[in-house]
Amino acid sequence: MIERYSLSPIKDLWGLEEQYKRWLEIEIAVVEAFEEKNQAPQGTAEKIRSKAVINVEKILEIEKVVDHDVIAFIKGVTDEMGDEARYFHKGLTSSDVVDTAWALALKRAGEMILEELKKYYDELLQKAQKYRYLITVGRTHGIHAEPTSFGLKFLSFAAETRRNISRLEVSLERVSEAKLSGAVGNYANIDPEIEKSALLKLGLKPTDVATQVVPRDIHAEFLSVLALIGAGMERMATEIRHLQKTEVLEVQEPFRKGQRGSSAMPHKKNPILCERLTGMARMLRSYTVTGYENISLWHERDISHSSAERVILPDACMTAYYMLVKSQYLVRELVVFEERILKTFDTSFNLVYSQRVMLGLIEKGLSREDSYKTVQKCALDAWEKRTDFKNLLKEDEIIKSKINSEDFEELFSNDYYIRNIDEIYKRFGL
Amino acid sequence: MIERYSLSPIKDLWGLEEQYKRWLEIEIAVVEAFEEKNQAPQGTAEKIRSKAVINVEKILEIEKVVDHDVIAFIKGVTDEMGDEARYFHKGLTSSDVVDTAWALALKRAGEMILEELKKYYDELLQKAQKYRYLITVGRTHGIHAEPTSFGLKFLSFAAETRRNISRLEVSLERVSEAKLSGAVGNYANIDPEIEKSALLKLGLKPTDVATQVVPRDIHAEFLSVLALIGAGMERMATEIRHLQKTEVLEVQEPFRKGQRGSSAMPHKKNPILCERLTGMARMLRSYTVTGYENISLWHERDISHSSAERVILPDACMTAYYMLVKSQYLVRELVVFEERILKTFDTSFNLVYSQRVMLGLIEKGLSREDSYKTVQKCALDAWEKRTDFKNLLKEDEIIKSKINSEDFEELFSNDYYIRNIDEIYKRFGL
Amino acid sequence: MIERYSLSPIKDLWGLEEQYKRWLEIEIAVVEAFEEKNQAPQGTAEKIRSKAVINVEKILEIEKVVDHDVIAFIKGVTDEMGDEARYFHKGLTSSDVVDTAWALALKRAGEMILEELKKYYDELLQKAQKYRYLITVGRTHGIHAEPTSFGLKFLSFAAETRRNISRLEVSLERVSEAKLSGAVGNYANIDPEIEKSALLKLGLKPTDVATQVVPRDIHAEFLSVLALIGAGMERMATEIRHLQKTEVLEVQEPFRKGQRGSSAMPHKKNPILCERLTGMARMLRSYTVTGYENISLWHERDISHSSAERVILPDACMTAYYMLVKSQYLVRELVVFEERILKTFDTSFNLVYSQRVMLGLIEKGLSREDSYKTVQKCALDAWEKRTDFKNLLKEDEIIKSKINSEDFEELFSNDYYIRNIDEIYKRFGL
Amino acid sequence: MIERYSLSPIKDLWGLEEQYKRWLEIEIAVVEAFEEKNQAPQGTAEKIRSKAVINVEKILEIEKVVDHDVIAFIKGVTDEMGDEARYFHKGLTSSDVVDTAWALALKRAGEMILEELKKYYDELLQKAQKYRYLITVGRTHGIHAEPTSFGLKFLSFAAETRRNISRLEVSLERVSEAKLSGAVGNYANIDPEIEKSALLKLGLKPTDVATQVVPRDIHAEFLSVLALIGAGMERMATEIRHLQKTEVLEVQEPFRKGQRGSSAMPHKKNPILCERLTGMARMLRSYTVTGYENISLWHERDISHSSAERVILPDACMTAYYMLVKSQYLVRELVVFEERILKTFDTSFNLVYSQRVMLGLIEKGLSREDSYKTVQKCALDAWEKRTDFKNLLKEDEIIKSKINSEDFEELFSNDYYIRNIDEIYKRFGL
Repeated sequence: MIERYSLSPIKDLWGLEEQYKRWLEIEIAVVEAFEEKNQAPQGTAEKIRSKAVINVEKILEIEKVVDHDVIAFIKGVTDEMGDEARYFHKGLTSSDVVDTAWALALKRAGEMILEELKKYYDELLQKAQKYRYLITVGRTHGIHAEPTSFGLKFLSFAAETRRNISRLEVSLERVSEAKLSGAVGNYANIDPEIEKSALLKLGLKPTDVATQVVPRDIHAEFLSVLALIGAGMERMATEIRHLQKTEVLEVQEPFRKGQRGSSAMPHKKNPILCERLTGMARMLRSYTVTGYENISLWHERDISHSSAERVILPDACMTAYYMLVKSQYLVRELVVFEERILKTFDTSFNLVYSQRVMLGLIEKGLSREDSYKTVQKCALDAWEKRTDFKNLLKEDEIIKSKINSEDFEELFSNDYYIRNIDEIYKRFGL
Repeated sequence: MIERYSLSPIKDLWGLEEQYKRWLEIEIAVVEAFEEKNQAPQGTAEKIRSKAVINVEKILEIEKVVDHDVIAFIKGVTDEMGDEARYFHKGLTSSDVVDTAWALALKRAGEMILEELKKYYDELLQKAQKYRYLITVGRTHGIHAEPTSFGLKFLSFAAETRRNISRLEVSLERVSEAKLSGAVGNYANIDPEIEKSALLKLGLKPTDVATQVVPRDIHAEFLSVLALIGAGMERMATEIRHLQKTEVLEVQEPFRKGQRGSSAMPHKKNPILCERLTGMARMLRSYTVTGYENISLWHERDISHSSAERVILPDACMTAYYMLVKSQYLVRELVVFEERILKTFDTSFNLVYSQRVMLGLIEKGLSREDSYKTVQKCALDAWEKRTDFKNLLKEDEIIKSKINSEDFEELFSNDYYIRNIDEIYKRFGL
Repeated sequence: MIERYSLSPIKDLWGLEEQYKRWLEIEIAVVEAFEEKNQAPQGTAEKIRSKAVINVEKILEIEKVVDHDVIAFIKGVTDEMGDEARYFHKGLTSSDVVDTAWALALKRAGEMILEELKKYYDELLQKAQKYRYLITVGRTHGIHAEPTSFGLKFLSFAAETRRNISRLEVSLERVSEAKLSGAVGNYANIDPEIEKSALLKLGLKPTDVATQVVPRDIHAEFLSVLALIGAGMERMATEIRHLQKTEVLEVQEPFRKGQRGSSAMPHKKNPILCERLTGMARMLRSYTVTGYENISLWHERDISHSSAERVILPDACMTAYYMLVKSQYLVRELVVFEERILKTFDTSFNLVYSQRVMLGLIEKGLSREDSYKTVQKCALDAWEKRTDFKNLLKEDEIIKSKINSEDFEELFSNDYYIRNIDEIYKRFGL
Repeated sequence: MIERYSLSPIKDLWGLEEQYKRWLEIEIAVVEAFEEKNQAPQGTAEKIRSKAVINVEKILEIEKVVDHDVIAFIKGVTDEMGDEARYFHKGLTSSDVVDTAWALALKRAGEMILEELKKYYDELLQKAQKYRYLITVGRTHGIHAEPTSFGLKFLSFAAETRRNISRLEVSLERVSEAKLSGAVGNYANIDPEIEKSALLKLGLKPTDVATQVVPRDIHAEFLSVLALIGAGMERMATEIRHLQKTEVLEVQEPFRKGQRGSSAMPHKKNPILCERLTGMARMLRSYTVTGYENISLWHERDISHSSAERVILPDACMTAYYMLVKSQYLVRELVVFEERILKTFDTSFNLVYSQRVMLGLIEKGLSREDSYKTVQKCALDAWEKRTDFKNLLKEDEIIKSKINSEDFEELFSNDYYIRNIDEIYKRFGL
């Protein structure tokens, strides 16, 4: 991931030194487990901990010769260690360390993402509550449809986010599965009890059945959840981009003091953050394709997944994290022009009430088909002539004969459209 | 989906007539709910049911004029219905019907898929049990690694499948969410209680917060679970393809009497079913990309998801189903050449025991580094000269000085490698 | 592909009978080549042609036994053929027939697509010419930017389409490559001259170096070109969807007499065709992923590509074709509200001239930085207060001191913005 | 891209300082063009060049305030410039600079990639020539098929690579298209002649019709070509992985002195580079999905493509470059065990000659159907009993009655299978 989109603390997870630290953390946890089971002398882990040296440069130098990163790490760290080195990496295969380290890193990253996802959810809830009763034009196909609650937009994003929280929690459980079961996953040279105990120390748990590696459906699922999370933010950002269009301008992405929208056009305030989120959502879903392809490894494993994962697992985590932090800010600081939202109704000549008029006719005994035709005629007329729909209806003979003027007025009441909003919120738990 | 890969009963879900039947089923459920809440006269639903006519040709004719499939359906079905037609589709928008029908169809399809997934799981378990103690060469990077259990391969597929069962069950719950909340999802012209009651009759439940449509993250998740299921079978099929290679030939895909492998080469028995599954897994993952893109609809919905869904939702379901049915057969009828599996050890000169010899040296007090070097030297020698590794070791001075001959022989015992197999199976619940 | 989106003539390419006809066409071409090279008695091809029977049901029955579609075809077609059958499929392998048939079908499909692509291009050109001098607001980030030519939008789509025509032509050349070189592509049992001659008869040419199959990068490239074509129409459709939004309404997708926009809302005219195209573009790009994965076959071929290709190659062709036919109609019949286009300027308070004012100041000697600040202040002010930018500028001290009123007025001339339009069109060749 | 997979010189293209240098290069080229057309005083460009300061830290500081990278760049670079600054970025919009800089960077990157692609092609050709007459078993479906030339494998990769060279050359032409046509691409504030002249200086050319940006189909095509290039290397790497499997071991990826294959198993020599390439090919194709999605921007542009491009364009270039460099090494240093290749025939009992025997029978007048059955019976027998096919045939009554022993022996000659190899090479131009 490029520096531009890297945020702490999640970016600090991915440096080489951090990786080596995780590897060491794992190797020591195994030796501690050995001690517990009397497979190593008491104090060995402690000695290893104090003597182990992580020298990134040195390890990379060794790697140039051995062409294997874990072997270089072991050599580099244990070089001056003395006799305890015999217990270091004992009975393990490289993937035990690498995949358990992925579990550690992804669990930590996933928890950070989950935390930001929940904060994002809270921001959405707050906006949902704040604008619960603000009437706005609902739009389908980009066309004015019927009045609705402005807050409901945010509640819909919140509902999607709540599903994503649940998905991430499930996936996080699986991502916390690791393995210390040797070259082909059968504990040939390590005791299953050692695995269980060492992983427990690390906050992880054994995966059901490993090969040399943790099965990759787990990582693919994680990536697919991140893609869903990204698409959720994309949906929100797309809504804002639409509402910020010059002709609509019902909301505006926060525009900071001193900010400039365009090098050429001094008047521009562009929803650049929303657009950035949109592009990033594309990246997140592209990673899933690789994730799915990584599942079908040869036999007890091939290492084809590894090169891709070194790039996409950190990038996917950082992208999701960055998007969530920015989305919180975006939702929190969103400028909402309430007056404009109400004025929008003017631009569609009261046509948004057409269904209700049609249903009014049906209620008065007209057939569905005739009601539809009556209303559509006036509606298309109003639209074409850009004149008020309500006025046209008033002069329609069928309307006049079927609906008295009091009932008629009532058909254009906005309150009608949000009378069930509380029920929606209540069902959601608000 | 092409006829070639379409199997009953799942293929019968997708015809136009079936779709219209689902739509009618939904419309009637709503009228029944109306009756319960006294929003329609008692008996209305019954009358509608008896008078409704699904005439596919006629509906398609109407659609040519109105250019809207649900409107054509309503018109076609209610044309001769009489007064009850007033309650038909009352307060609903097309998407209420369409998305609830998707929920019905995907729930039914998903249940069929789940059933086959469980049967596939059972076949894997049976093979896992049958070959629990059959020793085979474990391979990493395509290279012989260490002895392991042949059954463990199947247990690993089973474990992945068990996760997929769990994923599908979760996704099925979500896919069973539908909506009957009108044009912008705010129950403007329909009572939330009607939705709840009608969906209950259909075996569905209301989604948390709908727009005009059921949110598409639900469908994207479903597609991503199907992709995971597909990738699981791809992994299994890839294993068989490898094991069936001429030089390996440890297993063979079932080859039916009368079958011909090649139009040119009469001797061929090819793993064509496994290859077919591999290609289909690619299709399944490609659908997810579209699924993710379908999430970010404009405002209260645009209909861009619809054209793609008409194609990919049935195709994805049918592909997954077809693959599962074929995979069961494949696993059940798989020909396993046990003798060949054992003979495979000969082709790598006892090198698969190299780690154990190294660990033996470490146990005798040699440093990890020196042990590795000692063993690697003999190992590379054996490989290069294509001669027995064990014999070379016997003549090595360091080995001779460190390990007595009894201990030495013990290092080449296969039983050692499967002594923890029972623990793995036990953890899995077997 | 579902019937709903299948159009003749392209859909007629894909039936089973059509496929068998292509296979027969190829088999006969080979025998004709044999005759030419005196490798078969004169008249053999003619006899085969007259005696060959394509009975779809029968072939499928045979396939149930032999589990191989080409073998079943050969058996079915030659069953009652007599001695000539000896020259039928002689020296060929199934893939010779299957891949050459793909070349035939894709070439024909590709030519149909190319023809529609060129017609689509013509429609775009016509609109580009028609609206060459119609002033419209250019929008970036969805925000009004600067005046531009409405026709230029179509010219930009046309330019992209012209690149796509060129790409498709290149790809069509490659897709027309086939092979008749036997089981592993080395002409073991067939003369290279036979291949050349038979393919020539079929309007094809030999691929450079085949394995058992035509290399799949060729098909992947074809799919990627279709995805580009789809994305081009998606861009056009997205533009229309934006311009048809209620608040903008500068254009409208054709709405046929009798058409209904919504089952609930009689007033709706929705850009459903544009949305349909958008969804289909997603499908087209999803196919590429499978196309790329199909390239890396094992050794001289595995058949994993085949199951996917049977579905996606026809579907991709038909989807592209359908989209092109519909896009032509869409562009041709597009309703353009010229008055509305001009009125749009009112909604942004003359802010679209801000860059020009800034450049005016720079020309008068003010620094870029100061000019930007001066103009941005008035611009943001105008936007916030929703008042005329030009009026605000008139009262600005710096403006007054730097620009006289005649020069000032000139800064707001629309003609200025399209004075280079002719040059753009000229460069394009118009 | 992570450091691990970044190679010079291509990685040096992507730093921030390099980007700013490209931007400056462009800004100056425009001023030079101004001078030529007398739109700026002579010497302005020279002065700008000498006074312009690229101070990365300072620019980033400014960006924090203005939240716009190009504006920050302009401000940072021109801060102390004096009067010439008035001509800096005059008439341009940010995208003029950014997209022209992409063209510069991608053209340079593309040329580097093309150079390596050609070198890779040369390595393939050399191996194709070297092993032109080395007989090997051709394999389809992973099963022995018929004898063929080992060099032909490389020629097939070379043919694909030659197509990729051609694709990249075409795409490079398009990627070299840039634009300097202002905020909405209509040259409102800049002369088309300035664009032409400035781009010429930069080695670029104007794109046909720009919006605010260069149309993104150009970049998507470039990414799809890189994906094809990647898939080509994946195919080659997959072949090697297969041929290096323990049971096959016909080739071996170079294994350097000191290298270690496994931290656990001292005997392992794994095709890790091939596997790495395989994983990277997955990454390359995932980028295309984003590339296709980036095409359909809103109106005269939105900036959603930008965040993704900042990551994937450099990453895609570097990944392709890295893969090509490594693939050259891989092919060049590949260890080929010629003896093993010949010995492989033993493992399939002469079955690879089955087609030829069948054709021999047909030539002797037996029907195709009967010939197939005769040969298949012996073939399946030989396979099942793992005994020599040729011996079984010798005892078959039909064979004996149809083919005399001299002709029979001839059917098992390997030379027969490569007698057309020279023709294939000749057609290819070798």
